[in-house]
Amino acid sequence: MDELIRILTYVAVIASAVSGALEARKYNMDIVGATTIAYVTAFGGGTVRDLLLGRTPVFWVGDPGLTVTTLIVAFVSFYRLNLVSNNLLIVADAIGLGIFSILGATYTLQLNLSPIVAILMGVVTGIFGGVLRDLLCIRIPNVFGQSNELYATCSFVGTVIFILLNALHVNTVFASFTGAAIIFIMRLLALRFKMTLPSP
Amino acid sequence: MDELIRILTYVAVIASAVSGALEARKYNMDIVGATTIAYVTAFGGGTVRDLLLGRTPVFWVGDPGLTVTTLIVAFVSFYRLNLVSNNLLIVADAIGLGIFSILGATYTLQLNLSPIVAILMGVVTGIFGGVLRDLLCIRIPNVFGQSNELYATCSFVGTVIFILLNALHVNTVFASFTGAAIIFIMRLLALRFKMTLPSP
Amino acid sequence: MDELIRILTYVAVIASAVSGALEARKYNMDIVGATTIAYVTAFGGGTVRDLLLGRTPVFWVGDPGLTVTTLIVAFVSFYRLNLVSNNLLIVADAIGLGIFSILGATYTLQLNLSPIVAILMGVVTGIFGGVLRDLLCIRIPNVFGQSNELYATCSFVGTVIFILLNALHVNTVFASFTGAAIIFIMRLLALRFKMTLPSP
Repeated sequence: MDELIRILTYVAVIASAVSGALEARKYNMDIVGATTIAYVTAFGGGTVRDLLLGRTPVFWVGDPGLTVTTLIVAFVSFYRLNLVSNNLLIVADAIGLGIFSILGATYTLQLNLSPIVAILMGVVTGIFGGVLRDLLCIRIPNVFGQSNELYATCSFVGTVIFILLNALHVNTVFASFTGAAIIFIMRLLALRFKMTLPSP
Repeated sequence: MDELIRILTYVAVIASAVSGALEARKYNMDIVGATTIAYVTAFGGGTVRDLLLGRTPVFWVGDPGLTVTTLIVAFVSFYRLNLVSNNLLIVADAIGLGIFSILGATYTLQLNLSPIVAILMGVVTGIFGGVLRDLLCIRIPNVFGQSNELYATCSFVGTVIFILLNALHVNTVFASFTGAAIIFIMRLLALRFKMTLPSP
Repeated sequence: MDELIRILTYVAVIASAVSGALEARKYNMDIVGATTIAYVTAFGGGTVRDLLLGRTPVFWVGDPGLTVTTLIVAFVSFYRLNLVSNNLLIVADAIGLGIFSILGATYTLQLNLSPIVAILMGVVTGIFGGVLRDLLCIRIPNVFGQSNELYATCSFVGTVIFILLNALHVNTVFASFTGAAIIFIMRLLALRFKMTLPSP
Protein backbone atom coordinates (compact mmCIF):
# COMPACT_ATOMS: atom_id res chain seq x y z
CA MET A 1 0.00 0.00 0.00
CA ASP A 2 2.78 2.44 0.94
CA GLU A 3 4.65 1.51 -2.22
CA LEU A 4 1.49 2.11 -4.25
CA ILE A 5 0.99 5.54 -2.67
CA ARG A 6 4.61 6.38 -3.48
CA ILE A 7 4.23 5.44 -7.15
CA LEU A 8 1.00 7.41 -7.46
CA THR A 9 2.65 10.42 -5.82
CA TYR A 10 5.46 10.30 -8.40
CA VAL A 11 2.99 10.07 -11.30
CA ALA A 12 0.96 13.02 -10.02
CA VAL A 13 4.07 15.09 -9.25
CA ILE A 14 5.60 14.53 -12.69
CA ALA A 15 2.34 15.36 -14.47
CA SER A 16 1.98 18.59 -12.47
CA ALA A 17 5.61 19.59 -12.91
CA VAL A 18 5.31 19.39 -16.69
CA SER A 19 2.20 21.58 -16.69
CA GLY A 20 3.86 24.08 -14.32
CA ALA A 21 7.06 24.44 -16.36
CA LEU A 22 5.17 24.89 -19.64
CA GLU A 23 2.91 27.50 -18.01
CA ALA A 24 5.99 29.47 -16.89
CA ARG A 25 7.23 29.71 -20.48
CA LYS A 26 4.06 31.54 -21.50
CA TYR A 27 4.96 34.30 -19.03
CA ASN A 28 8.52 34.78 -20.33
CA MET A 29 10.05 33.42 -17.17
CA ASP A 30 13.61 32.09 -17.10
CA ILE A 31 14.60 28.60 -15.93
CA VAL A 32 14.52 29.71 -12.28
CA GLY A 33 10.92 30.83 -12.67
CA ALA A 34 10.01 27.66 -14.57
CA THR A 35 11.62 25.44 -11.94
CA THR A 36 9.92 27.29 -9.09
CA ILE A 37 6.52 27.15 -10.80
CA ALA A 38 7.07 23.44 -11.52
CA TYR A 39 7.88 22.79 -7.85
CA VAL A 40 4.91 24.85 -6.65
CA THR A 41 2.48 23.12 -9.00
CA ALA A 42 3.80 19.66 -8.19
CA PHE A 43 4.34 20.05 -4.43
CA GLY A 44 1.79 22.80 -3.62
CA GLY A 45 -1.40 20.84 -3.02
CA GLY A 46 0.24 18.14 -0.94
CA THR A 47 2.28 20.71 0.99
CA VAL A 48 -0.81 22.73 1.95
CA ARG A 49 -2.50 19.47 3.00
CA ASP A 50 0.47 18.41 5.14
CA LEU A 51 0.75 21.83 6.79
CA LEU A 52 -2.97 21.95 7.62
CA LEU A 53 -2.92 18.43 9.03
CA GLY A 54 0.34 18.96 10.91
CA ARG A 55 2.14 16.21 8.96
CA THR A 56 5.60 17.80 9.07
CA PRO A 57 8.22 17.71 7.70
CA VAL A 58 6.02 17.83 4.58
CA PHE A 59 5.89 14.87 2.21
CA TRP A 60 8.65 15.83 -0.26
CA VAL A 61 11.19 16.66 2.46
CA GLY A 62 11.42 12.99 3.38
CA ASP A 63 11.83 11.75 -0.21
CA PRO A 64 14.74 13.53 -2.00
CA GLY A 65 13.90 11.57 -5.17
CA LEU A 66 10.87 13.83 -5.63
CA THR A 67 13.05 16.95 -5.54
CA VAL A 68 15.50 15.57 -8.11
CA THR A 69 12.75 14.21 -10.36
CA THR A 70 10.89 17.52 -10.40
CA LEU A 71 14.09 19.42 -11.16
CA ILE A 72 14.86 17.17 -14.13
CA VAL A 73 11.26 17.34 -15.39
CA ALA A 74 11.33 21.15 -15.11
CA PHE A 75 14.59 21.45 -17.09
CA VAL A 76 13.49 19.04 -19.82
CA SER A 77 10.05 20.66 -20.12
CA PHE A 78 11.51 24.16 -20.25
CA TYR A 79 14.34 23.58 -22.72
CA ARG A 80 13.22 20.57 -24.76
CA LEU A 81 9.44 20.26 -24.97
CA ASN A 82 8.34 22.12 -28.05
CA LEU A 83 5.88 19.77 -29.60
CA VAL A 84 3.89 18.60 -26.61
CA SER A 85 0.42 17.61 -27.68
CA ASN A 86 -2.21 19.56 -25.81
CA ASN A 87 -4.16 16.34 -25.26
CA LEU A 88 -1.23 14.81 -23.43
CA LEU A 89 -1.11 17.77 -21.06
CA ILE A 90 -4.83 17.55 -20.37
CA VAL A 91 -4.61 13.85 -19.63
CA ALA A 92 -1.57 14.33 -17.38
CA ASP A 93 -3.31 17.09 -15.47
CA ALA A 94 -6.47 15.00 -15.00
CA ILE A 95 -4.36 12.11 -13.68
CA GLY A 96 -2.75 14.48 -11.17
CA LEU A 97 -6.13 15.84 -10.08
CA GLY A 98 -7.49 12.35 -9.45
CA ILE A 99 -4.49 11.01 -7.57
CA PHE A 100 -3.86 14.08 -5.42
CA SER A 101 -7.52 14.32 -4.37
CA ILE A 102 -7.69 10.72 -3.18
CA LEU A 103 -4.31 10.98 -1.43
CA GLY A 104 -5.53 14.09 0.43
CA ALA A 105 -8.64 12.31 1.68
CA THR A 106 -6.67 9.17 2.55
CA TYR A 107 -4.15 11.00 4.74
CA THR A 108 -6.97 12.83 6.54
CA LEU A 109 -8.79 9.59 7.34
CA GLN A 110 -5.52 8.05 8.55
CA LEU A 111 -5.50 10.73 11.28
CA ASN A 112 -9.01 9.68 12.36
CA LEU A 113 -10.44 13.06 11.39
CA SER A 114 -13.98 13.66 10.21
CA PRO A 115 -14.98 12.43 6.69
CA ILE A 116 -16.33 15.94 6.01
CA VAL A 117 -12.89 17.41 6.58
CA ALA A 118 -11.42 14.60 4.46
CA ILE A 119 -13.56 15.72 1.51
CA LEU A 120 -12.42 19.34 1.88
CA MET A 121 -8.81 18.19 2.21
CA GLY A 122 -9.15 16.02 -0.92
CA VAL A 123 -10.33 19.00 -2.96
CA VAL A 124 -7.64 21.27 -1.48
CA THR A 125 -4.90 18.75 -2.30
CA GLY A 126 -6.28 18.31 -5.80
CA ILE A 127 -6.62 21.95 -6.79
CA PHE A 128 -4.12 23.99 -4.72
CA GLY A 129 -1.07 23.17 -6.80
CA GLY A 130 -2.79 24.87 -9.73
CA VAL A 131 -4.13 27.71 -7.57
CA LEU A 132 -0.64 28.55 -6.28
CA ARG A 133 0.80 28.24 -9.82
CA ASP A 134 -1.72 30.80 -11.06
CA LEU A 135 -1.06 33.13 -8.11
CA LEU A 136 2.68 33.14 -8.87
CA CYS A 137 1.79 34.01 -12.47
CA ILE A 138 -0.44 36.82 -11.08
CA ARG A 139 -3.74 35.77 -12.56
CA ILE A 140 -7.05 34.78 -10.98
CA PRO A 141 -6.90 31.00 -10.58
CA ASN A 142 -8.35 29.21 -13.60
CA VAL A 143 -10.38 26.94 -11.41
CA PHE A 144 -12.44 29.89 -10.07
CA GLY A 145 -13.65 31.20 -13.43
CA GLN A 146 -17.26 30.89 -14.63
CA SER A 147 -16.22 29.92 -18.12
CA ASN A 148 -14.14 27.05 -16.83
CA GLU A 149 -15.18 23.43 -17.21
CA LEU A 150 -15.76 21.40 -14.05
CA TYR A 151 -12.50 20.90 -12.19
CA ALA A 152 -12.86 21.26 -8.42
CA THR A 153 -16.31 19.69 -8.87
CA CYS A 154 -14.78 16.50 -10.30
CA SER A 155 -12.42 16.35 -7.35
CA PHE A 156 -15.36 16.87 -4.97
CA VAL A 157 -17.57 14.17 -6.53
CA GLY A 158 -14.78 11.58 -6.73
CA THR A 159 -13.66 12.25 -3.17
CA VAL A 160 -17.23 11.94 -1.83
CA ILE A 161 -17.62 8.58 -3.57
CA PHE A 162 -14.26 7.43 -2.18
CA ILE A 163 -15.35 8.43 1.32
CA LEU A 164 -18.69 6.62 0.93
CA LEU A 165 -17.00 3.43 -0.30
CA ASN A 166 -14.66 3.66 2.68
CA ALA A 167 -17.59 4.04 5.07
CA LEU A 168 -19.08 0.89 3.53
CA HIS A 169 -15.79 -0.93 4.30
CA VAL A 170 -15.04 -1.55 0.65
CA ASN A 171 -11.42 -2.62 0.00
CA THR A 172 -9.22 0.51 0.23
CA VAL A 173 -7.25 -0.07 -2.96
CA PHE A 174 -10.46 -0.60 -4.91
CA ALA A 175 -12.10 2.48 -3.36
CA SER A 176 -9.03 4.60 -4.16
CA PHE A 177 -8.90 3.53 -7.79
CA THR A 178 -12.64 4.04 -8.20
CA GLY A 179 -12.47 7.54 -6.74
CA ALA A 180 -9.45 8.57 -8.81
CA ALA A 181 -10.91 7.04 -11.98
CA ILE A 182 -14.21 8.90 -11.51
CA ILE A 183 -12.34 12.21 -11.13
CA PHE A 184 -10.21 11.45 -14.18
CA ILE A 185 -13.10 10.42 -16.44
CA MET A 186 -15.46 13.15 -15.23
CA ARG A 187 -12.81 15.79 -15.90
CA LEU A 188 -12.24 14.57 -19.46
CA LEU A 189 -16.01 14.43 -20.08
CA ALA A 190 -16.41 17.95 -18.67
CA LEU A 191 -13.76 19.21 -21.09
CA ARG A 192 -15.24 17.27 -24.01
CA PHE A 193 -18.80 18.55 -23.43
CA LYS A 194 -17.82 21.96 -22.01
CA MET A 195 -19.80 21.48 -18.79
CA THR A 196 -19.94 24.47 -16.43
CA LEU A 197 -21.73 25.31 -13.19
CA PRO A 198 -24.84 27.53 -12.91
CA SER A 199 -24.26 31.28 -12.40
CA PRO A 200 -25.95 33.28 -9.62
CA MET B 1 -14.74 29.67 28.33
CA ASP B 2 -14.11 27.06 25.60
CA GLU B 3 -17.78 27.15 24.65
CA LEU B 4 -17.64 30.95 24.45
CA ILE B 5 -14.56 30.80 22.18
CA ARG B 6 -16.38 28.32 19.96
CA ILE B 7 -19.44 30.55 19.59
CA LEU B 8 -17.30 33.59 18.82
CA THR B 9 -15.35 31.58 16.24
CA TYR B 10 -18.60 30.65 14.49
CA VAL B 11 -19.81 34.27 14.46
CA ALA B 12 -16.53 35.53 13.00
CA VAL B 13 -16.34 32.69 10.45
CA ILE B 14 -19.89 33.25 9.20
CA ALA B 15 -19.39 37.03 8.92
CA SER B 16 -16.18 36.51 6.94
CA ALA B 17 -17.66 33.82 4.69
CA VAL B 18 -20.48 36.13 3.62
CA SER B 19 -18.04 38.91 2.73
CA GLY B 20 -15.81 36.45 0.86
CA ALA B 21 -18.60 34.94 -1.24
CA LEU B 22 -20.03 38.33 -2.20
CA GLU B 23 -16.55 39.56 -3.16
CA ALA B 24 -16.13 36.57 -5.49
CA ARG B 25 -19.28 37.50 -7.40
CA LYS B 26 -17.78 40.87 -8.33
CA TYR B 27 -15.00 38.99 -10.15
CA ASN B 28 -17.33 36.77 -12.21
CA MET B 29 -16.26 33.67 -10.38
CA ASP B 30 -18.41 30.53 -10.36
CA ILE B 31 -19.63 28.79 -7.20
CA VAL B 32 -16.30 26.96 -6.85
CA GLY B 33 -14.48 30.28 -6.78
CA ALA B 34 -17.02 31.77 -4.39
CA THR B 35 -16.80 28.80 -2.04
CA THR B 36 -13.00 28.84 -2.08
CA ILE B 37 -12.85 32.59 -1.45
CA ALA B 38 -15.41 32.19 1.36
CA TYR B 39 -13.30 29.46 2.97
CA VAL B 40 -10.08 31.45 2.58
CA THR B 41 -11.61 34.62 4.04
CA ALA B 42 -13.24 32.74 6.92
CA PHE B 43 -10.45 30.30 7.76
CA GLY B 44 -7.37 32.22 6.48
CA GLY B 45 -6.45 34.39 9.46
CA GLY B 46 -6.89 31.61 12.02
CA THR B 47 -5.11 29.10 9.80
CA VAL B 48 -2.04 31.32 9.40
CA ARG B 49 -2.05 31.88 13.17
CA ASP B 50 -2.26 28.13 13.89
CA LEU B 51 0.50 27.30 11.40
CA LEU B 52 2.85 29.95 12.80
CA LEU B 53 2.20 28.82 16.38
CA GLY B 54 2.43 25.13 15.51
CA ARG B 55 -1.16 24.46 16.63
CA THR B 56 -1.85 21.66 14.14
CA PRO B 57 -4.09 20.22 12.86
CA VAL B 58 -5.42 23.77 12.37
CA PHE B 59 -8.59 24.90 14.15
CA TRP B 60 -11.23 24.03 11.52
CA VAL B 61 -9.90 20.51 10.93
CA GLY B 62 -11.05 19.48 14.38
CA ASP B 63 -14.54 20.98 14.05
CA PRO B 64 -16.36 19.71 10.90
CA GLY B 65 -19.31 21.96 11.76
CA LEU B 66 -17.24 24.94 10.62
CA THR B 67 -16.66 23.36 7.22
CA VAL B 68 -20.34 22.60 6.69
CA THR B 69 -21.47 26.01 7.97
CA THR B 70 -19.09 27.87 5.68
CA LEU B 71 -20.18 25.78 2.69
CA ILE B 72 -23.86 26.57 3.34
CA VAL B 73 -23.13 30.26 3.93
CA ALA B 74 -21.14 30.40 0.68
CA PHE B 75 -23.94 28.81 -1.36
CA VAL B 76 -26.66 30.99 0.13
CA SER B 77 -24.59 34.15 -0.26
CA PHE B 78 -23.66 33.33 -3.84
CA TYR B 79 -27.07 32.26 -5.16
CA ARG B 80 -29.57 34.06 -2.91
CA LEU B 81 -28.19 37.28 -1.44
CA ASN B 82 -29.12 40.05 -3.84
CA LEU B 83 -30.30 42.76 -1.53
CA VAL B 84 -27.69 42.66 1.21
CA SER B 85 -27.44 46.05 2.83
CA ASN B 86 -23.91 47.38 2.68
CA ASN B 87 -24.19 48.41 6.31
CA LEU B 88 -24.84 44.82 7.34
CA LEU B 89 -21.66 43.70 5.57
CA ILE B 90 -19.59 46.42 7.23
CA VAL B 91 -20.91 45.49 10.67
CA ALA B 92 -20.33 41.77 10.05
CA ASP B 93 -16.79 42.41 8.90
CA ALA B 94 -16.04 44.61 11.94
CA ILE B 95 -17.35 41.87 14.25
CA GLY B 96 -15.05 39.37 12.55
CA LEU B 97 -12.07 41.72 12.85
CA GLY B 98 -12.63 42.19 16.58
CA ILE B 99 -13.20 38.55 17.44
CA PHE B 100 -10.38 37.12 15.32
CA SER B 101 -7.84 39.63 16.69
CA ILE B 102 -8.59 38.78 20.32
CA LEU B 103 -8.64 35.04 19.60
CA GLY B 104 -5.21 35.32 17.95
CA ALA B 105 -3.72 37.06 20.97
CA THR B 106 -5.44 34.65 23.38
CA TYR B 107 -4.04 31.52 21.74
CA THR B 108 -0.54 33.05 21.71
CA LEU B 109 -0.67 33.85 25.41
CA GLN B 110 -1.93 30.33 26.13
CA LEU B 111 1.39 29.06 24.75
CA ASN B 112 3.29 31.31 27.22
CA LEU B 113 4.79 33.33 24.38
CA SER B 114 5.77 36.99 24.58
CA PRO B 115 2.96 39.61 24.73
CA ILE B 116 4.71 41.43 21.86
CA VAL B 117 4.32 38.37 19.65
CA ALA B 118 0.71 38.05 20.87
CA ILE B 119 -0.04 41.55 19.54
CA LEU B 120 1.45 40.73 16.14
CA MET B 121 -0.46 37.44 16.08
CA GLY B 122 -3.70 39.24 16.96
CA VAL B 123 -3.29 41.60 14.02
CA VAL B 124 -2.29 38.76 11.67
CA THR B 125 -5.34 36.69 12.69
CA GLY B 126 -7.60 39.72 12.27
CA ILE B 127 -6.43 40.87 8.84
CA PHE B 128 -5.01 37.84 6.99
CA GLY B 129 -8.35 36.37 5.96
CA GLY B 130 -8.97 39.56 3.98
CA VAL B 131 -5.39 39.74 2.71
CA LEU B 132 -5.56 36.20 1.30
CA ARG B 133 -9.04 36.91 -0.17
CA ASP B 134 -7.63 39.91 -2.02
CA LEU B 135 -4.59 37.95 -3.23
CA LEU B 136 -6.83 35.26 -4.73
CA CYS B 137 -8.74 38.06 -6.50
CA ILE B 138 -5.34 39.41 -7.73
CA ARG B 139 -5.51 42.86 -6.25
CA ILE B 140 -3.31 44.67 -3.75
CA PRO B 141 -4.87 43.99 -0.34
CA ASN B 142 -7.37 46.69 0.62
CA VAL B 143 -5.87 47.00 4.05
CA PHE B 144 -2.52 48.24 2.62
CA GLY B 145 -3.90 51.21 0.67
CA GLN B 146 -3.35 54.83 1.70
CA SER B 147 -6.94 55.79 0.97
CA ASN B 148 -8.23 53.06 3.25
CA GLU B 149 -9.79 53.83 6.62
CA LEU B 150 -8.12 52.41 9.71
CA TYR B 151 -8.38 48.62 9.73
CA ALA B 152 -5.21 46.90 10.92
CA THR B 153 -4.77 49.89 13.25
CA CYS B 154 -8.06 49.10 15.03
CA SER B 155 -6.94 45.49 15.45
CA PHE B 156 -3.59 46.70 16.81
CA VAL B 157 -5.08 49.15 19.33
CA GLY B 158 -7.70 46.70 20.61
CA THR B 159 -5.19 43.88 20.94
CA VAL B 160 -2.73 46.09 22.85
CA ILE B 161 -5.49 47.07 25.31
CA PHE B 162 -6.48 43.42 25.70
CA ILE B 163 -2.84 42.50 26.46
CA LEU B 164 -2.54 45.33 28.98
CA LEU B 165 -5.74 44.30 30.78
CA ASN B 166 -4.42 40.75 30.88
CA ALA B 167 -1.11 41.90 32.35
CA LEU B 168 -3.12 43.71 35.06
CA HIS B 169 -4.85 40.38 35.84
CA VAL B 170 -8.27 41.69 34.83
CA ASN B 171 -10.87 38.93 34.33
CA THR B 172 -10.18 37.27 30.95
CA VAL B 173 -13.75 37.33 29.66
CA PHE B 174 -14.05 41.02 30.48
CA ALA B 175 -10.68 41.80 28.89
CA SER B 176 -11.64 39.88 25.74
CA PHE B 177 -14.98 41.66 25.33
CA THR B 178 -13.38 45.05 25.98
CA GLY B 179 -10.66 44.43 23.38
CA ALA B 180 -13.09 43.13 20.74
CA ALA B 181 -15.56 45.96 21.42
CA ILE B 182 -12.86 48.62 21.05
CA ILE B 183 -11.82 47.14 17.69
CA PHE B 184 -15.45 46.97 16.55
CA ILE B 185 -16.36 50.53 17.59
CA MET B 186 -13.08 52.07 16.41
CA ARG B 187 -13.51 50.45 13.00
CA LEU B 188 -17.04 51.83 12.61
CA LEU B 189 -15.90 55.30 13.74
CA ALA B 190 -12.96 55.17 11.30
CA LEU B 191 -15.37 54.40 8.46
CA ARG B 192 -17.84 57.07 9.59
CA PHE B 193 -15.22 59.81 9.84
CA LYS B 194 -12.95 58.55 7.04
CA MET B 195 -9.87 58.40 9.27
CA THR B 196 -6.59 57.47 7.57
CA LEU B 197 -2.92 57.25 8.56
CA PRO B 198 -0.27 59.88 7.73
CA SER B 199 1.65 59.44 4.46
CA PRO B 200 5.46 59.51 4.25
CA MET C 1 27.45 29.05 17.26
CA ASP C 2 23.87 29.79 18.37
CA GLU C 3 24.84 33.38 19.17
CA LEU C 4 26.42 33.71 15.72
CA ILE C 5 23.26 32.38 14.03
CA ARG C 6 21.22 34.89 16.02
CA ILE C 7 23.37 37.85 14.94
CA LEU C 8 23.28 36.75 11.30
CA THR C 9 19.50 36.37 11.50
CA TYR C 10 19.18 39.97 12.76
CA VAL C 11 21.42 41.31 9.98
CA ALA C 12 19.45 39.48 7.29
CA VAL C 13 16.09 40.47 8.79
CA ILE C 14 17.00 44.17 9.02
CA ALA C 15 18.35 44.24 5.46
CA SER C 16 15.17 42.60 4.14
CA ALA C 17 12.86 44.82 6.19
CA VAL C 18 14.40 47.98 4.71
CA SER C 19 13.96 46.67 1.17
CA GLY C 20 10.36 45.63 1.91
CA ALA C 21 9.30 48.97 3.41
CA LEU C 22 10.83 50.97 0.56
CA GLU C 23 9.14 48.70 -2.00
CA ALA C 24 5.76 49.37 -0.35
CA ARG C 25 6.17 53.13 -0.82
CA LYS C 26 6.40 52.67 -4.58
CA TYR C 27 2.89 51.19 -4.52
CA ASN C 28 1.32 54.07 -2.55
CA MET C 29 0.74 51.90 0.48
CA ASP C 30 0.22 53.42 3.92
CA ILE C 31 2.33 52.55 6.98
CA VAL C 32 0.25 49.42 7.63
CA GLY C 33 1.05 48.15 4.15
CA ALA C 34 4.71 49.10 4.53
CA THR C 35 4.98 47.36 7.89
CA THR C 36 3.26 44.22 6.61
CA ILE C 37 5.46 44.08 3.51
CA ALA C 38 8.54 44.64 5.70
CA TYR C 39 7.52 41.75 7.96
CA VAL C 40 6.73 39.48 5.02
CA THR C 41 10.04 40.22 3.29
CA ALA C 42 12.06 39.83 6.48
CA PHE C 43 10.27 36.84 8.01
CA GLY C 44 8.85 35.15 4.86
CA GLY C 45 11.70 32.95 3.74
CA GLY C 46 12.52 31.66 7.22
CA THR C 47 8.85 31.17 8.03
CA VAL C 48 8.23 29.04 4.94
CA ARG C 49 11.37 27.04 5.81
CA ASP C 50 10.21 26.47 9.40
CA LEU C 51 6.69 25.47 8.33
CA LEU C 52 7.97 22.99 5.74
CA LEU C 53 10.43 21.46 8.22
CA GLY C 54 7.91 21.43 11.07
CA ARG C 55 10.04 23.74 13.25
CA THR C 56 7.14 25.43 15.03
CA PRO C 57 6.48 27.87 16.57
CA VAL C 58 8.39 29.55 13.73
CA PHE C 59 11.71 31.30 14.41
CA TRP C 60 10.48 34.86 15.09
CA VAL C 61 7.75 33.77 17.52
CA GLY C 62 10.40 32.74 20.03
CA ASP C 63 12.43 35.98 19.74
CA PRO C 64 10.25 39.09 20.31
CA GLY C 65 13.29 41.29 19.63
CA LEU C 66 12.92 40.45 15.93
CA THR C 67 9.32 41.68 15.91
CA VAL C 68 10.23 44.97 17.60
CA THR C 69 13.32 45.50 15.44
CA THR C 70 11.41 44.95 12.22
CA LEU C 71 8.64 47.32 13.33
CA ILE C 72 11.15 50.09 14.07
CA VAL C 73 13.02 49.49 10.81
CA ALA C 74 9.73 49.62 8.88
CA PHE C 75 8.69 52.94 10.47
CA VAL C 76 12.07 54.58 9.98
CA SER C 77 12.34 53.34 6.39
CA PHE C 78 8.82 54.47 5.54
CA TYR C 79 8.84 57.93 7.11
CA ARG C 80 12.53 58.92 7.16
CA LEU C 81 14.54 57.27 4.41
CA ASN C 82 14.49 59.60 1.45
CA LEU C 83 18.06 59.53 0.31
CA VAL C 84 18.90 55.86 0.50
CA SER C 85 21.62 55.06 -1.95
CA ASN C 86 20.57 52.35 -4.34
CA ASN C 87 23.92 50.67 -3.85
CA LEU C 88 23.30 50.33 -0.13
CA LEU C 89 20.00 48.56 -0.83
CA ILE C 90 21.64 46.17 -3.29
CA VAL C 91 24.38 45.30 -0.83
CA ALA C 92 21.89 44.83 2.01
CA ASP C 93 19.74 42.57 -0.13
CA ALA C 94 22.74 40.47 -1.21
CA ILE C 95 23.77 40.06 2.44
CA GLY C 96 20.26 38.85 3.28
CA LEU C 97 20.28 36.41 0.36
CA GLY C 98 23.58 34.90 1.46
CA ILE C 99 22.75 34.56 5.14
CA PHE C 100 19.20 33.25 4.70
CA SER C 101 20.30 30.61 2.18
CA ILE C 102 22.98 29.18 4.44
CA LEU C 103 20.68 29.28 7.48
CA GLY C 104 18.03 27.34 5.53
CA ALA C 105 20.49 24.62 4.60
CA THR C 106 21.93 24.51 8.13
CA TYR C 107 18.57 23.96 9.82
CA THR C 108 17.71 21.21 7.32
CA LEU C 109 20.96 19.37 7.99
CA GLN C 110 20.39 19.70 11.75
CA LEU C 111 17.24 17.56 11.26
CA ASN C 112 19.34 14.85 9.55
CA LEU C 113 17.48 15.34 6.28
CA SER C 114 18.94 14.75 2.83
CA PRO C 115 21.57 17.23 1.50
CA ILE C 116 19.47 17.50 -1.68
CA VAL C 117 16.52 18.76 0.33
CA ALA C 118 18.91 21.07 2.23
CA ILE C 119 19.91 22.73 -1.05
CA LEU C 120 16.26 23.27 -2.04
CA MET C 121 15.50 24.61 1.44
CA GLY C 122 18.47 26.98 1.24
CA VAL C 123 17.19 28.46 -2.00
CA VAL C 124 13.62 28.65 -0.68
CA THR C 125 14.76 30.45 2.48
CA GLY C 126 16.90 32.82 0.42
CA ILE C 127 14.33 33.85 -2.19
CA PHE C 128 10.85 33.40 -0.66
CA GLY C 129 10.87 36.62 1.35
CA GLY C 130 11.17 38.49 -1.93
CA VAL C 131 8.70 36.22 -3.72
CA LEU C 132 6.01 36.83 -1.07
CA ARG C 133 6.79 40.58 -1.07
CA ASP C 134 6.19 40.70 -4.83
CA LEU C 135 2.98 38.64 -4.55
CA LEU C 136 1.55 41.10 -1.99
CA CYS C 137 2.41 43.89 -4.45
CA ILE C 138 0.60 41.86 -7.17
CA ARG C 139 3.45 41.47 -9.61
CA ILE C 140 5.22 38.43 -11.01
CA PRO C 141 8.18 37.81 -8.69
CA ASN C 142 11.28 39.62 -9.90
CA VAL C 143 13.37 36.53 -9.43
CA PHE C 144 11.38 34.63 -12.10
CA GLY C 145 11.92 37.13 -14.95
CA GLN C 146 14.16 36.42 -17.96
CA SER C 147 15.67 39.87 -17.88
CA ASN C 148 16.70 39.49 -14.28
CA GLU C 149 20.31 39.00 -13.22
CA LEU C 150 21.25 35.79 -11.42
CA TYR C 151 19.57 35.66 -8.00
CA ALA C 152 18.23 32.22 -7.10
CA THR C 153 21.20 30.84 -9.03
CA CYS C 154 23.65 32.54 -6.64
CA SER C 155 21.77 31.06 -3.71
CA PHE C 156 21.86 27.64 -5.37
CA VAL C 157 25.60 27.71 -6.12
CA GLY C 158 26.58 28.98 -2.67
CA THR C 159 24.36 26.45 -0.91
CA VAL C 160 25.77 23.56 -2.96
CA ILE C 161 29.33 24.59 -2.04
CA PHE C 162 28.33 24.88 1.64
CA ILE C 163 26.81 21.37 1.50
CA LEU C 164 29.95 19.97 -0.18
CA LEU C 165 32.25 21.56 2.42
CA ASN C 166 30.03 20.08 5.12
CA ALA C 167 30.23 16.63 3.55
CA LEU C 168 34.03 16.99 3.61
CA HIS C 169 33.80 17.70 7.36
CA VAL C 170 35.20 21.21 6.98
CA ASN C 171 34.69 23.40 10.07
CA THR C 172 31.03 24.53 10.09
CA VAL C 173 31.68 28.22 10.75
CA PHE C 174 34.21 28.34 7.91
CA ALA C 175 31.85 26.48 5.55
CA SER C 176 28.98 28.83 6.43
CA PHE C 177 31.01 31.98 5.80
CA THR C 178 32.40 30.59 2.55
CA GLY C 179 28.92 29.72 1.28
CA ALA C 180 27.40 33.06 2.26
CA ALA C 181 30.36 35.00 0.84
CA ILE C 182 30.13 33.18 -2.50
CA ILE C 183 26.42 34.03 -2.74
CA PHE C 184 27.10 37.66 -1.82
CA ILE C 185 29.98 38.16 -4.25
CA MET C 186 28.36 36.21 -7.10
CA ARG C 187 25.20 38.31 -6.76
CA LEU C 188 27.13 41.57 -6.94
CA LEU C 189 29.12 40.31 -9.94
CA ALA C 190 25.90 39.20 -11.66
CA LEU C 191 24.48 42.71 -11.21
CA ARG C 192 27.70 44.38 -12.32
CA PHE C 193 28.03 42.31 -15.50
CA LYS C 194 24.29 41.81 -16.12
CA MET C 195 24.53 38.02 -16.20
CA THR C 196 21.33 36.14 -17.11
CA LEU C 197 20.34 32.53 -17.76
CA PRO C 198 19.78 31.00 -21.24
CA SER C 199 16.23 31.16 -22.65
CA PRO C 200 14.38 28.11 -24.00
